[in-house]
Amino acid sequence: MINVSIVGGTGYTAGELLRILLNHPHVQIDSVISSTSVGTPVSDVHRDLFGETDLRFTDTFNNPDVIFLCLGHGLSRNFLDENDIPEKCKIIDLGNDFRNSPDYANRNFVFGLCELNREKIRETNNVANPGCFATSIILALLPLASENKLKEDVHVHAITGSTGAGKRPVETTHFSYRDNNISVYKPFAHQHIEEIRNALTYAGNKELPAINFIPMRGDFPRGIFASVYTKWDSSVSESEVVELYKNYYKDSPSVFVSDEPISLKEVVNTNKCLLHIELHNGYIHITSIIDNLLKGASGQAVQNMNLMFGLEESTGLKLKGSAF
Amino acid sequence: MINVSIVGGTGYTAGELLRILLNHPHVQIDSVISSTSVGTPVSDVHRDLFGETDLRFTDTFNNPDVIFLCLGHGLSRNFLDENDIPEKCKIIDLGNDFRNSPDYANRNFVFGLCELNREKIRETNNVANPGCFATSIILALLPLASENKLKEDVHVHAITGSTGAGKRPVETTHFSYRDNNISVYKPFAHQHIEEIRNALTYAGNKELPAINFIPMRGDFPRGIFASVYTKWDSSVSESEVVELYKNYYKDSPSVFVSDEPISLKEVVNTNKCLLHIELHNGYIHITSIIDNLLKGASGQAVQNMNLMFGLEESTGLKLKGSAF
Amino acid sequence: MINVSIVGGTGYTAGELLRILLNHPHVQIDSVISSTSVGTPVSDVHRDLFGETDLRFTDTFNNPDVIFLCLGHGLSRNFLDENDIPEKCKIIDLGNDFRNSPDYANRNFVFGLCELNREKIRETNNVANPGCFATSIILALLPLASENKLKEDVHVHAITGSTGAGKRPVETTHFSYRDNNISVYKPFAHQHIEEIRNALTYAGNKELPAINFIPMRGDFPRGIFASVYTKWDSSVSESEVVELYKNYYKDSPSVFVSDEPISLKEVVNTNKCLLHIELHNGYIHITSIIDNLLKGASGQAVQNMNLMFGLEESTGLKLKGSAF
Amino acid sequence: MINVSIVGGTGYTAGELLRILLNHPHVQIDSVISSTSVGTPVSDVHRDLFGETDLRFTDTFNNPDVIFLCLGHGLSRNFLDENDIPEKCKIIDLGNDFRNSPDYANRNFVFGLCELNREKIRETNNVANPGCFATSIILALLPLASENKLKEDVHVHAITGSTGAGKRPVETTHFSYRDNNISVYKPFAHQHIEEIRNALTYAGNKELPAINFIPMRGDFPRGIFASVYTKWDSSVSESEVVELYKNYYKDSPSVFVSDEPISLKEVVNTNKCLLHIELHNGYIHITSIIDNLLKGASGQAVQNMNLMFGLEESTGLKLKGSAF
Repeated sequence: MINVSIVGGTGYTAGELLRILLNHPHVQIDSVISSTSVGTPVSDVHRDLFGETDLRFTDTFNNPDVIFLCLGHGLSRNFLDENDIPEKCKIIDLGNDFRNSPDYANRNFVFGLCELNREKIRETNNVANPGCFATSIILALLPLASENKLKEDVHVHAITGSTGAGKRPVETTHFSYRDNNISVYKPFAHQHIEEIRNALTYAGNKELPAINFIPMRGDFPRGIFASVYTKWDSSVSESEVVELYKNYYKDSPSVFVSDEPISLKEVVNTNKCLLHIELHNGYIHITSIIDNLLKGASGQAVQNMNLMFGLEESTGLKLKGSAF
Repeated sequence: MINVSIVGGTGYTAGELLRILLNHPHVQIDSVISSTSVGTPVSDVHRDLFGETDLRFTDTFNNPDVIFLCLGHGLSRNFLDENDIPEKCKIIDLGNDFRNSPDYANRNFVFGLCELNREKIRETNNVANPGCFATSIILALLPLASENKLKEDVHVHAITGSTGAGKRPVETTHFSYRDNNISVYKPFAHQHIEEIRNALTYAGNKELPAINFIPMRGDFPRGIFASVYTKWDSSVSESEVVELYKNYYKDSPSVFVSDEPISLKEVVNTNKCLLHIELHNGYIHITSIIDNLLKGASGQAVQNMNLMFGLEESTGLKLKGSAF
Repeated sequence: MINVSIVGGTGYTAGELLRILLNHPHVQIDSVISSTSVGTPVSDVHRDLFGETDLRFTDTFNNPDVIFLCLGHGLSRNFLDENDIPEKCKIIDLGNDFRNSPDYANRNFVFGLCELNREKIRETNNVANPGCFATSIILALLPLASENKLKEDVHVHAITGSTGAGKRPVETTHFSYRDNNISVYKPFAHQHIEEIRNALTYAGNKELPAINFIPMRGDFPRGIFASVYTKWDSSVSESEVVELYKNYYKDSPSVFVSDEPISLKEVVNTNKCLLHIELHNGYIHITSIIDNLLKGASGQAVQNMNLMFGLEESTGLKLKGSAF
Repeated sequence: MINVSIVGGTGYTAGELLRILLNHPHVQIDSVISSTSVGTPVSDVHRDLFGETDLRFTDTFNNPDVIFLCLGHGLSRNFLDENDIPEKCKIIDLGNDFRNSPDYANRNFVFGLCELNREKIRETNNVANPGCFATSIILALLPLASENKLKEDVHVHAITGSTGAGKRPVETTHFSYRDNNISVYKPFAHQHIEEIRNALTYAGNKELPAINFIPMRGDFPRGIFASVYTKWDSSVSESEVVELYKNYYKDSPSVFVSDEPISLKEVVNTNKCLLHIELHNGYIHITSIIDNLLKGASGQAVQNMNLMFGLEESTGLKLKGSAF
């Protein structure tokens, strides 16, 4: 059994990790760390876990094989500064501290997108788990980037659920505001653009064009729907490019190319990413959907853990979708 | 023109008052008081008013004919303690300070339910505007109480929108929590029970039975749906009791008795209360719907203002419902 | 492996069965029967299953060990009339045909509420799966009924999600109507009252009082929130009655008694029922929550299948809740 | 008073017209035509109008000064073929029959976007009311087009509410499907592209570039949020272009340019369009919001009626927004 510790145990991604790991056949929970809630039952905070666990928050590691860092952005580095983690203990960081700056002391973090770095993840002790928007957008473009086919500006609108904004209640997550509401934030300036660019370049796209990304706040709790397009060389047909995508993801247990148009709830509460591709008017249009808390965060983190421990990648991740 | 001042101008009920009063044919806004936002455009806070007003928050009255108090419960009394309001200036309190304790210095507050106290409201300078749950439940029972017909325990479930919980974001108004969620709070113990009992007794029901009230939090922003029943004397037929209700409310411009079952959105964004009555198995069952911010708060407050200034009761209150 | 056939494969409960059974360790799908969709991939209809199964609808059984009937109410009887099902083949009917009329030819249907009939279910070949409202309400009252403690009228409001209304689009499931809307239907007259009364009487409550049940349509897709109360003998304390409940359900893997108030999403996408009990003003108040498609339908059906085949009751039912 | 007839009286846009016109100071309803509902009270179909009107559907005109055609697309032409409408009777068509093909017999239809054709609308008897998506997108681009500044491909994502899909319940408007769901439909191929192109060309943009338009289905009933961008000449500053927009719309009572970012509910249940403009990375980005049933349909139709009858353009259109 893998001894797992979760640091920052009261937040959304920690809760989601627990929902997965309590049923994972090769995991036992070493500790759920929250300095502010020591002694409190985990199910008092993650109320849906009532009846499923008697765990309590603690501030002490037992003997973890892997630590998931579920801290605010910037706080993972602090955590490593302040805690003496044995070198053999693996670390999976769900924050953004090491995605674009992979080096920390003698640890070098691998960007934890399995579909890009499967082999490297198998061999590392340190994973920087990708951001949620980044995951949905990179997966939409990866087969093209791997063939160096992104030449002209890429246009992206992606709409995210409220859990992407974290647990602390603020004005834009107030139900009275958010319900039936839509808004744009950080247009052309979202912090995930950097990791998207890095990943696509690393995948093989030499001179990456602009990625114009308009993030939108949606009126739903879970999921990201990304709509992505760029100019397309008319010499490559729709069936050829669809084949390229299917081939690229043929060994991925969580990415699927749908011939039919897709809608967000087809992936909610699963670790899947669905893609759909169409050509129109000299453009290639890709829609990409994930659950931001699963394939966009905790599910992907477990997928990485599985690889790091030599398990089948989808172990514990065949989740029943909610569908409705 | 009636010079109106709104105190506590940044909250939900103040915003709703402004939405109504900016289009009211006999009103001009004297001042929108908010000690924390002096100088800020009102439409920076109530964003939907952009393009409709250039008003700014202030901390100074000009010369109001009437002051609407939109303060937290308990703070209206403080306000009157600390401000020297001329006796001729009318006061409409949207808080609960004077509903059950109507006397303050030489001001005596009338309970501002037009359907109960229409004549008294016309003659007073001081109105305690009813609570939202109280409004929906009292209107469901008033025709019965006025005939002293409430003899056996009354059973009430009423579900409210998130705007009823106020503007400050908290855990139970976080979109991630509230969306698609239902919960019960303060069962048998809601603070409005007292004003419900007082109103029904005052209406003529001598020995009032228990009012068992289960408030529920709904996953919508606006509205209250109340479902109310009590044992019923089989000698009075359904058509007779429906007639009793229609007759009781025949002069009320905002209460209507529907022969068809009703659904909440039929009143959202209107100042209406709709009622529907059926007899079943020895019980009378009444459903009652209002918009909590309108008939349950700011709309009713304007209705009271109209009466206090000798205007037709529904002036400025023929609002286009949103329906969807 | 258990060979499973699902009849009526395109509806909501069939889809939910597939979501569960595709991951069930002891099941293989024999056939998904839909006369109208023969040859169509199952994931064309249940779109969220894309990437998870290559099954196609058929009209032919292979050799099922158990048939789940997911037909409209009244159609299960027709199905048995028209098909020659081997006696050893088990049947689990998700419709209401045999809940109150258990006899059909030489088959006698057991009411499939595990918490009431666990032993009988283990020994039968024929289960009538309870209705969704019935499940939530019976579980709220079962410990009291088993001790013959229901003496006075029981008052129930329960609010259900739109999936309870089935897949065919109608006016009251149109998004434009349903979103942010609440309504009551069939007050005092819902068809589940009969099975509720039968179950509580069978559990040991001799002279059952009236069950006053007001069903409500909620503006969410999944779940039932039931609020139930009845007069309570003041000689039994809150802690004693909570203990009674905890004891009654101590061996049930899917029913839990929470000391904290509960909210609907704590059970969504799980097979759990959560209960919370409080005493107030001479009443006992019980809130009860389930996912209508899981514990209220397909999850409970699999729970019954597990018992009928000698498996641990919760096999394949440790589902990751969606929580948000 | 203007005698108004509404043809196709049971649909969403007809209901919305009634909601507006019942409170319009210069209108009386001549007739609400529905061949399938003759004799039925209008409030039986538009339930929210209960208590506000005793009108019944009819199949006979009285003597209308103006007819609003609220028929399915393609049916307005049929209506004119089959009915002998006096030449002096004005016609406002809410369908798409005459937007791009303005000639019918001796009637010539003016494209009814007040902000483009204010003077022509004042003088015509025939208006083709713009489509909802078209309205939001044209208003976002009109000031640029009027100065011939659209030179490079325009990128548009716009998300619409479920009322845009009409009243007949279908799979994609089923609450169980639509709630918390997002999807794309008709990418690069929406039928409104033609009227958008026509309007922008007519406004003065000679060689119009491609308008790449991705329509999205949102999980809310009312509103359109459009996000629009195109490459921008860096010699024109953000403040200059904002000034250009403010100047263009300075006389429009329903279009406002916000210096702050906007969110959809700021316009729901109003006849307003709000715009917000930012420059980023060599692009101009415009967000545009309307209520699809008001500024996108029935509100704009009344705005046109006001102009056609010499009334102030916003008469009867100062609607209280719902805000929440």
